[in-house]
Amino acid sequence: MKGNNITALLLFIFLLLVVIAPSNSFADPDPSGANTGTINDVPAATAGQPTVEEVGAVAGHNKISINIMWTLVAGFLVMFMQAGFAMVETGFTRAKNVAHTMGMNFLVYAIGMIGFWISGFAFMFGGVGAIGALGGTPGLNSMFSIELFGKTFELVGYSGFFLNNAVYDVGVFTLFLFQMVFMDTTATIPTGSMAERWKFTAFIIYGFFISMIVYPLFGNWVWGGGWLADLGVNFGLGHGHVDFAGSSVVHLVGGVAALAGAIVIGPRIGKYTRDGKVNAIPGHNIPMAMVGTFILAFGWFGFNAGSTLAGTDLRIGVVATNTMIASGAGALVATIFMLIKFKKPDPSMMANGLLAGLVAITAPCAFVNSWASFVIGAIAGVLVVAAVFFIDHKLHIDDPVGAVAVHGVNGAWGVLSLGLFADGSYGDGWNGVAGGVKGLFYGDGGQFAAQLIGTLTCIIFVFALMYGFFKIQHKLFGIRVNAEDEVEGLDTPEMGVLGYDYSSGPEQK
Amino acid sequence: MKGNNITALLLFIFLLLVVIAPSNSFADPDPSGANTGTINDVPAATAGQPTVEEVGAVAGHNKISINIMWTLVAGFLVMFMQAGFAMVETGFTRAKNVAHTMGMNFLVYAIGMIGFWISGFAFMFGGVGAIGALGGTPGLNSMFSIELFGKTFELVGYSGFFLNNAVYDVGVFTLFLFQMVFMDTTATIPTGSMAERWKFTAFIIYGFFISMIVYPLFGNWVWGGGWLADLGVNFGLGHGHVDFAGSSVVHLVGGVAALAGAIVIGPRIGKYTRDGKVNAIPGHNIPMAMVGTFILAFGWFGFNAGSTLAGTDLRIGVVATNTMIASGAGALVATIFMLIKFKKPDPSMMANGLLAGLVAITAPCAFVNSWASFVIGAIAGVLVVAAVFFIDHKLHIDDPVGAVAVHGVNGAWGVLSLGLFADGSYGDGWNGVAGGVKGLFYGDGGQFAAQLIGTLTCIIFVFALMYGFFKIQHKLFGIRVNAEDEVEGLDTPEMGVLGYDYSSGPEQK
Amino acid sequence: MKGNNITALLLFIFLLLVVIAPSNSFADPDPSGANTGTINDVPAATAGQPTVEEVGAVAGHNKISINIMWTLVAGFLVMFMQAGFAMVETGFTRAKNVAHTMGMNFLVYAIGMIGFWISGFAFMFGGVGAIGALGGTPGLNSMFSIELFGKTFELVGYSGFFLNNAVYDVGVFTLFLFQMVFMDTTATIPTGSMAERWKFTAFIIYGFFISMIVYPLFGNWVWGGGWLADLGVNFGLGHGHVDFAGSSVVHLVGGVAALAGAIVIGPRIGKYTRDGKVNAIPGHNIPMAMVGTFILAFGWFGFNAGSTLAGTDLRIGVVATNTMIASGAGALVATIFMLIKFKKPDPSMMANGLLAGLVAITAPCAFVNSWASFVIGAIAGVLVVAAVFFIDHKLHIDDPVGAVAVHGVNGAWGVLSLGLFADGSYGDGWNGVAGGVKGLFYGDGGQFAAQLIGTLTCIIFVFALMYGFFKIQHKLFGIRVNAEDEVEGLDTPEMGVLGYDYSSGPEQK
Repeated sequence: MKGNNITALLLFIFLLLVVIAPSNSFADPDPSGANTGTINDVPAATAGQPTVEEVGAVAGHNKISINIMWTLVAGFLVMFMQAGFAMVETGFTRAKNVAHTMGMNFLVYAIGMIGFWISGFAFMFGGVGAIGALGGTPGLNSMFSIELFGKTFELVGYSGFFLNNAVYDVGVFTLFLFQMVFMDTTATIPTGSMAERWKFTAFIIYGFFISMIVYPLFGNWVWGGGWLADLGVNFGLGHGHVDFAGSSVVHLVGGVAALAGAIVIGPRIGKYTRDGKVNAIPGHNIPMAMVGTFILAFGWFGFNAGSTLAGTDLRIGVVATNTMIASGAGALVATIFMLIKFKKPDPSMMANGLLAGLVAITAPCAFVNSWASFVIGAIAGVLVVAAVFFIDHKLHIDDPVGAVAVHGVNGAWGVLSLGLFADGSYGDGWNGVAGGVKGLFYGDGGQFAAQLIGTLTCIIFVFALMYGFFKIQHKLFGIRVNAEDEVEGLDTPEMGVLGYDYSSGPEQK
Repeated sequence: MKGNNITALLLFIFLLLVVIAPSNSFADPDPSGANTGTINDVPAATAGQPTVEEVGAVAGHNKISINIMWTLVAGFLVMFMQAGFAMVETGFTRAKNVAHTMGMNFLVYAIGMIGFWISGFAFMFGGVGAIGALGGTPGLNSMFSIELFGKTFELVGYSGFFLNNAVYDVGVFTLFLFQMVFMDTTATIPTGSMAERWKFTAFIIYGFFISMIVYPLFGNWVWGGGWLADLGVNFGLGHGHVDFAGSSVVHLVGGVAALAGAIVIGPRIGKYTRDGKVNAIPGHNIPMAMVGTFILAFGWFGFNAGSTLAGTDLRIGVVATNTMIASGAGALVATIFMLIKFKKPDPSMMANGLLAGLVAITAPCAFVNSWASFVIGAIAGVLVVAAVFFIDHKLHIDDPVGAVAVHGVNGAWGVLSLGLFADGSYGDGWNGVAGGVKGLFYGDGGQFAAQLIGTLTCIIFVFALMYGFFKIQHKLFGIRVNAEDEVEGLDTPEMGVLGYDYSSGPEQK
Repeated sequence: MKGNNITALLLFIFLLLVVIAPSNSFADPDPSGANTGTINDVPAATAGQPTVEEVGAVAGHNKISINIMWTLVAGFLVMFMQAGFAMVETGFTRAKNVAHTMGMNFLVYAIGMIGFWISGFAFMFGGVGAIGALGGTPGLNSMFSIELFGKTFELVGYSGFFLNNAVYDVGVFTLFLFQMVFMDTTATIPTGSMAERWKFTAFIIYGFFISMIVYPLFGNWVWGGGWLADLGVNFGLGHGHVDFAGSSVVHLVGGVAALAGAIVIGPRIGKYTRDGKVNAIPGHNIPMAMVGTFILAFGWFGFNAGSTLAGTDLRIGVVATNTMIASGAGALVATIFMLIKFKKPDPSMMANGLLAGLVAITAPCAFVNSWASFVIGAIAGVLVVAAVFFIDHKLHIDDPVGAVAVHGVNGAWGVLSLGLFADGSYGDGWNGVAGGVKGLFYGDGGQFAAQLIGTLTCIIFVFALMYGFFKIQHKLFGIRVNAEDEVEGLDTPEMGVLGYDYSSGPEQK
């Protein structure tokens, strides 16, 4: 059919309907919107003349609606970060392993979600009590604790398994969605450091282990009302360990697990030669990795600003802007650093600089001003470049995408920087302690101590658990593909298909 | 210019502005946000001392604002699914047809939108009446119906053509945007099953036909107040045919159209050989397809949770979480199924498993709990794998991306599963019937009957219309490209450009 | 480990936890959400019995929360457009320059953000006063102006540098985030027209120049309370220069800068031969460009509908729908135009048609109805195709991605079309002028004059500044890579890595 015919058809339909169109009448369309949403939308015994109680009911419901909506939208954005991780990790690895790297990043979303649904959520938030911002329904009311030094140490929650009927509640389900996508961010970090050699079935078991047990335990201690959160009320250390959106809970846990995994699984064939030479193994697709980085930066707004769990907590404006500024500083400083040192900017360092800034600002984003955000991000930009080289050239640990440098090193820097730069303008009542959260530079050394304790606890606890897990799993089943498959590429032997198949394509040179 | 110079320049600007910065004074900045948004933001005759009516006006306006905002944001997410479909379908087809497959998925957004604007919206929603959640403006008030068996059968709406001035209203426009992107999801499904051989101009005509006529008709019957919605009030069958977000209205319609199209257009050259052999034609880019799947899963939150048309309907928390859990179950079960059967997970089945879970949960997401969501998704994960093999190996219908299995089979499963698992906790007053929506397992067999009637109606009506359409179009103009173009690849002959042109690239092996 | 083992493990965990699950008790879960968010969520001296003032405080806070949330979510969407630009520009250029093109589009986000933070925001919005929709905190209160013809001409703001403590405010930070991503859209446009030959360090300097100085100055005149906005109150020209979301402020500025840059840097080697022949240099990846276009269209909803800075301004429903319809008209008309003229649709023109529709509707989206949106978009679809050919074949200016045609030509068309089609249904009080904004066709020729003055001012001012800047920069440091690097591809010489490296990939034909 020709373009002319299409045009004729369109014109015909158009004329036909123009005749019909004006035949409709409409009482009162409201094009400006000024007359839409009025007092008549307040359900009232006497329509249009509500009582204070009737208006109050709507105002209270609106407030919780704003918070639930904010938390859900933020959660959706965080979920989308899975696509970002998948693209960054796949872009920075080799073309022969793309279906495998993609496949892990894809399935971790499903695995983690089901694992968190089975037990992770219950362990982490089972004792958190009513979340006021999300409607305040009681429940999630069971916490296991021990007494030590005359203090109560809360260790793990245990209600909410399978989101069973006892927690069949709109607020609890909203919290679950938001927290599950956070957990999945952690779970996907080691797929970067262990890429290009990890057995797919071994990865599946790992996915359940971290989402059901490891992440929820440390998460409980910081966000579920556990003992690290109580360092303030129990021992007078500031507001206890404070981590707004997860520099430690999410990124440091993921980074440390990535480190343990990279050590146990060993470097890729050809990465380090016997004479100590370090070979670069370049990624195959820089555009894919950079687009993935943008997706991460996009989702990170949900990650950080969503962590208020409340759109009515207007600090969200500051949180989002701080997040952005730290990311820009990280990218810019890493780029300038590379330009000065190697005369070339290196896109992978640009991307890692931006991500490092994001990881670092994740804990302090709600507690600092824009100046401090710039400084925190700038330092992260230097740290990540230095750490990538140190881990590769000095430690000889093969981390194909720099996961340990980005998430581990800068996760630690993030929680510590909060202990330095928090300016006291926000956080009144955090973890049950009155007054804004203040760092060392604003006079509260105890806060820095709490941050340090949380950081060390995270590193030691997670490393021990994950190193042990990987070692045992490796002994029992093997976690690494065989050498031929690794050299050939994992796509066909592990996944059953080639990730790229251009044999069907048009001729290219 | 060297990095050093850049650093020097930055330092200079920095120092310059540090001098200027503190010279500004500011009455009362509010860093915590606690003093922003107060009683003074309530317009009142006596500032700061509003009457109940004045507060009520703001509360009512806030309520509708929350709903409109929610519906719009959800609509934006659904629109973004177009990119997901484009990537999934292009990734799962061959490199020689990428500009063509992408081009159809791209243009269907424009075609469908204009078609729906011309007549689709009016046919589907022209008789729906005032939508309370979006402000409740009257209009969209014309419905054509017939009397049969002493009952009124509403068949098609007819106001709102071209969004003419009679419906120039913020609530109506919001509804249009949200519904148009739903329709476009349907319209894009057959581009998968008919990929790699469809004449581009024939596709354009199809796009107008489905968006202007087919989708709106069935949609009217379920969502526009039509006769399937009235099965409850008219014949006592539960709440009538219930489909929360479109397992039937969107996915089954698309899947059946995809089936009709695939039958009429016939298999790709080389797909089935004369001796009954079935040849696999692998997709060219697994990462593209998997990223596309993530985009779909991201947008699906808008699809399902947005279908309340109300952020103040807090069931959205349950809807979103159910959506996620079903998708995870689908992906995981499909993967395990493939691992057991073929020892390899197959990324395309992972992706299709996740999508199948999403399609299936789309109808019941608001009416079931998380257990049922898991079960519905898990069954979808098995169904999709079985259906892909059955359609390909038994029926010998060539559906390059599995569109019929994903959207058709699981669309049907979705609406039927609602008739089984709906637990009665939600849906009071749905389609004019009091009480929550309950499925067979919770004691309402009539609801299941209504679901079955809707499903069969959809399959018969859409198949008849689309099969007839494609047949006639094929007779008159031809809908399939010629064999040489198909073998060569459709990009140059149909689109005028190569989709990939790496001749300009750097040397690769 | 085998699939069977995995299944066994899952079953075991499952059974274990089924035992634990029901042991939890829960006071009052609320699955429907109907009992969540009540009068008890209104903080009150007497719980559950708030006074009018107490309810009013919540209603007022909710209102500002809705607005801040809307502005932030919209801002996130606009930020994501950076990924869209990166993909469109990279897809439409050659494979040998992908790391370079991507790299510029990536780093411009960081550069622009920091530049805007240093001075751009202060220059543009430093004198804007209190933004009521975002809480109305005073500050941003310093504007430099001159007296001329007995009128005050506001020229540039000067408070808010570095978001210093004087503007450490949730409303101001929210405004910053939203405005910064707008600026970055402008900054990234010339990376398209100057692609494949721009020295990376020269680009960095450009990035700071446009974000710190050029964009903020013109932006101040239109959105910061400057003299173009005052053309209405000062000279009776309608509502002054009106640009709802930036056809002139964002796109025309970017398009003109792109034109100046393309002229100064000159065409790519081989683009125009001495005998006047014009060579097409096809992009390397159509799917990448089309997915990028979808991302842009997705983000554009935030761009346009977010520009109310208020979710409680319900015109957002009309704005979003108009935006969509114009984009569809642009894509469809450009496609039909190509089909008629060349018998092939050409995906790059589909994409540019959609983008042209979006650029054009950006200024008028809030002031016109859906008919006008269709017409504006349709004209944009013709304009962009004509302009691409004119600029290439007649002017012999090499603009690899059509940035000047899309953003420049259609940016101008957008602001002018507002002066024609604005229907008076919205904009009461805009720029201090009472009554709705009306275009020439609705009787206000003065409005069209104001649009024309703004357009010409933009073209002259930005061209002069940017042409001068590029010329001087070129003289001093050189802005173009050397010829060998250009022929070889910029990735290795400029960025230090190959953008694509498939040498590690599996064998392909």
